[in-house]
Amino acid sequence: MSAMHKQAAGLTPVEEALARILADARQISGAEFRPLSECRNRVLASAVHSAIDVPPADNSSMDGYALRFEDYATGQRRFVLSQRVAAGAVGLPLEPGTAARIFTGAELPAGADAVVMQEEARAQDGAVEFGEGLRPGANVRPRGQDISVGSLAVEAGTRLSAGHLGLLASIGLPGVPVLPRLRVAILSTGNELVEPGQPLAPGQIYNSNRYMLSAMLEDLGMAVIDKGIVPDEPEGTRRLLAEAAESADVVLTTGGVSVGEEDHVKGAVEALGELQLWKLAIKPGKPLAYGRVAGKPFFGLPGNPSSVFVTFTVIARPYLQRMQGLTQDLRLQEVQAEAGFDWPKAGKRQEYLRGRLETHGDGAVVRLYPNQSSGVLASVAWGNCLVVLPVGKTVNAGEVVRVLLL
Amino acid sequence: MSAMHKQAAGLTPVEEALARILADARQISGAEFRPLSECRNRVLASAVHSAIDVPPADNSSMDGYALRFEDYATGQRRFVLSQRVAAGAVGLPLEPGTAARIFTGAELPAGADAVVMQEEARAQDGAVEFGEGLRPGANVRPRGQDISVGSLAVEAGTRLSAGHLGLLASIGLPGVPVLPRLRVAILSTGNELVEPGQPLAPGQIYNSNRYMLSAMLEDLGMAVIDKGIVPDEPEGTRRLLAEAAESADVVLTTGGVSVGEEDHVKGAVEALGELQLWKLAIKPGKPLAYGRVAGKPFFGLPGNPSSVFVTFTVIARPYLQRMQGLTQDLRLQEVQAEAGFDWPKAGKRQEYLRGRLETHGDGAVVRLYPNQSSGVLASVAWGNCLVVLPVGKTVNAGEVVRVLLL
Repeated sequence: MSAMHKQAAGLTPVEEALARILADARQISGAEFRPLSECRNRVLASAVHSAIDVPPADNSSMDGYALRFEDYATGQRRFVLSQRVAAGAVGLPLEPGTAARIFTGAELPAGADAVVMQEEARAQDGAVEFGEGLRPGANVRPRGQDISVGSLAVEAGTRLSAGHLGLLASIGLPGVPVLPRLRVAILSTGNELVEPGQPLAPGQIYNSNRYMLSAMLEDLGMAVIDKGIVPDEPEGTRRLLAEAAESADVVLTTGGVSVGEEDHVKGAVEALGELQLWKLAIKPGKPLAYGRVAGKPFFGLPGNPSSVFVTFTVIARPYLQRMQGLTQDLRLQEVQAEAGFDWPKAGKRQEYLRGRLETHGDGAVVRLYPNQSSGVLASVAWGNCLVVLPVGKTVNAGEVVRVLLL
Repeated sequence: MSAMHKQAAGLTPVEEALARILADARQISGAEFRPLSECRNRVLASAVHSAIDVPPADNSSMDGYALRFEDYATGQRRFVLSQRVAAGAVGLPLEPGTAARIFTGAELPAGADAVVMQEEARAQDGAVEFGEGLRPGANVRPRGQDISVGSLAVEAGTRLSAGHLGLLASIGLPGVPVLPRLRVAILSTGNELVEPGQPLAPGQIYNSNRYMLSAMLEDLGMAVIDKGIVPDEPEGTRRLLAEAAESADVVLTTGGVSVGEEDHVKGAVEALGELQLWKLAIKPGKPLAYGRVAGKPFFGLPGNPSSVFVTFTVIARPYLQRMQGLTQDLRLQEVQAEAGFDWPKAGKRQEYLRGRLETHGDGAVVRLYPNQSSGVLASVAWGNCLVVLPVGKTVNAGEVVRVLLL
């Protein structure tokens, strides 16, 4: 445990801590086949290649008239209508010199290779006339334009969005193999905590981290195992942590771990596994515990709600996403925006300010919640982004700053 | 119906269409009380004011020693420890001239108004000594810092995020009134459609819009009522639409409405209510139907998957969000980013290009999916944003463009 105590002596830069912790993350194993209707926000377990062309044949992208372009190229402008092809139907091979009435999405009859939009045609007495300007392949959506047979449709490790689900349906799959939902046990520490709905005695506060953390995990498609509030004695704490590790893939606690004197989690984790105490150059945050409990990864987040929010979002979230099998977009999307605030005081830790990004004329301006204290959860509720200020950074309004989108 | 036919003659700018359609959106009525654990992503039905101060009393933000600042101000630097206050416990009034051992989150004993961090104190033989530099109120989190009694905690019409749920828990609420989930009936039109998992006959394609649209609605916390594929005859279509309107708050169809000859939806909607056909200056997209079926709002989206995605996202989504009761953030967040592409051809409609925003050095660069055809659903699956190009706009790589974040 000497290495970690060296870490604890100084402050570790956020990126360094994240890289080291992430290097330790292992993807959960297993895969379960689920119908598409249950795959939203799940992570694809293995790459999906298409067994078909999409579209499966050349089809019309317009309501109009299909013809052989070679006829048009020789100067023919009037075509007898030899057939009618609706979407879902199959035409006969197109007789040379004739055109087919055709509708959006209908397959081109064999031989046809261009479509004239109905708005650009004059149909009368079973024939149709066109003007100039038709190009080969006009208004034809070629076979395999979207996806071709054998090509990669969706990569393994992709979180399935509406677009992916549409794409998987379009290649005919009723379901796909997804990774099991990561099971995350959460425990709250703090003798002062009371559950909402209960009366509040002097000295007590309501437990908010539990609700915030559960919702953040559910947003990531993970399964929350809520183990409640850690009891105020060593034996019970050890038993609860062991149970948590037994039932989950990873264990998160909020509060207490950095302290010691009033906390039994540190001792329990050390008894059941190993614990590294980090002091991160992060604000809000700083103390973070990382280790193993009965072989399962363990994160001890701080106790203040804004610190929980920031350390979870910046450190634990990418780790959990990797455990869940995600191979890209582990971290929040970063953009740049104009600062709608001044920040005159350079910090000694990298700061994550709770802000609100708003579209403004022809740019985006980010404003800050007035009170950035780590105890102020209202800042998190109000915000839609985090402004990242590196160590030593000051900001003048109008300057461009880094913004992480929530 | 003459007004709408005038609209159909030209192309209506996107912003104008959106403003007109949005002006017609009515919030659903009713409210249901739900425990916080079921309120993620739900919309708050009425404003919540706090019945308590958070924190409820001055407390310590550090492990350390609480004292009366007036003692320190008179030059006293050594204090006998007269008590010990753990988080959750209540101390006795602090005897003048003494200090209390105190822990993070513990309430200050009456009379104490500053805390010295333990790292800056030397404790020995039941007393503690401090150096210089303590300021009044140091390391004290004042009563009501996060929220004060009677203040607004969360506005009505807010979609409840993890931060909001934490905040609501912190003021002691076990649950809140939320608006009912908007019930959205979806129907697919197109004789060529087959459900995934079924064999594909010539002329047919798999139904993808149904899965994409369901997932997009679920992302918004809405309840999807999937009415399947519209039958190919007028009577059945009318019956299905009437059923959809009966069971839902709003009806969406994909495909067909702009066409007529092969489509029974238009006639059925007109028979059951009213229909406006819009030609929007939007690409992909353009044809959009909006109206009422048996008194319920009706949207007829295009059939091509990318067109469905864009018209849903740009037009229907804000409308549905307003119906769902959302009062802000109806639309996608817009940011600016550097174009990682050239777009030499000025369009006649406002284009929504499927792109991928990536953090890149000290900025964000947006790249485009190579094939922007409206039939290419792979572009939607691949992307994480839409690049908005106004009518007539061309782009050189490196230029700053408007980006809507998905």
